Amino acid sequence: MTAGKLKIYGDSRSGNCYKIQLLCSEMGIEYDWKEVDILAGDTRTPQFLAINANGRIPLLALPDGRYLPESNAILFYLAEGSEFFAGDAYSRAEILQWMFFEQYSLEPNIATSRFIIKYLGNPPGSLASLAEKKAGGHQALKVLEQQFLRHLFVTGDCYNIADIALFAYTHIADEGGFDLEDYPATREWIERIAGRSNYVPMTKT
Amino acid sequence: MTAGKLKIYGDSRSGNCYKIQLLCSEMGIEYDWKEVDILAGDTRTPQFLAINANGRIPLLALPDGRYLPESNAILFYLAEGSEFFAGDAYSRAEILQWMFFEQYSLEPNIATSRFIIKYLGNPPGSLASLAEKKAGGHQALKVLEQQFLRHLFVTGDCYNIADIALFAYTHIADEGGFDLEDYPATREWIERIAGRSNYVPMTKT
Repeated sequence: MTAGKLKIYGDSRSGNCYKIQLLCSEMGIEYDWKEVDILAGDTRTPQFLAINANGRIPLLALPDGRYLPESNAILFYLAEGSEFFAGDAYSRAEILQWMFFEQYSLEPNIATSRFIIKYLGNPPGSLASLAEKKAGGHQALKVLEQQFLRHLFVTGDCYNIADIALFAYTHIADEGGFDLEDYPATREWIERIAGRSNYVPMTKT
Repeated sequence: MTAGKLKIYGDSRSGNCYKIQLLCSEMGIEYDWKEVDILAGDTRTPQFLAINANGRIPLLALPDGRYLPESNAILFYLAEGSEFFAGDAYSRAEILQWMFFEQYSLEPNIATSRFIIKYLGNPPGSLASLAEKKAGGHQALKVLEQQFLRHLFVTGDCYNIADIALFAYTHIADEGGFDLEDYPATREWIERIAGRSNYVPMTKT
């Protein structure tokens, strides 16, 4: 990691941005936070697109002027070489496996449902889309529950960046219309993470 | 990487599975291929769900009996420590950045459109979904084009697993209704990859 203070561009209501706050708190990494309002179009301005052509947050700015987007790539960058991305070749790949699962199978269902319901005011035109996401989200939650029935954390006994990535939207799944009633091991995993001494909650919802 | 012969469960029509074939060809890795027919429900049998609860392919089976799903995690596992996942901490994170971009912004638009058009027979009920994916896919292709206007490969001068991940569905984007006419640098990048001496084409489309 480059020496010097990091800057994070993020919207405090976004679970993807919260991932970085949570890892930084766990690792004791200091950073400057630049609030970016997605709903106000802050990620679509020419200024923002010049630093991230994909127009998304979070975006990490390094002290040397380089930028890194994609929440899970930022987690990897900050955690590589630490206890939060550890183990042998297979274990490291397994951490990434769950981070790809998070971005493909969980986030597009749970986070997007939350966005539609909470921030877009649940418009009637989203009914079919929400139904599809409900099925996909529960499918992902069932896969996760199986992991937590067997392990303390998603890849085993150690808390790592896969847990942080998955925690971001799972612990607020209710805001996307997902009741965790049927996922007791997942609820225990959430409490396990929220009970850690360096845990920080989302600052704004 | 564990010593011994690897086994890959995959559907030869899937770009996600082809990624692994392409990397293995580039790296000279031998493997056994177990053909799995997604359309026939092969990934939803109790036998398959027992080895991958998420019911997806590709799935890598290690000689020691462990399994690894998620195409991009498999690429990472096979390539870590090689020229296909090289560079400093930032460069490695940048490779993953584009692999997360591929799974979040490109694959769900381009691969899914291809699946609907080519394998589901383009049913009338998919019109709205395809329109949304068309917009998202072109947005992703525009972001990629900007990279290829500046670099030979997606992260710079070196071909790596981010290129392989992105190539899988980009080079067959036309099958999903995406014309690459407006993306000349992307077409050159496709030719650059297809012209490599260890390149292998998709075996079945």
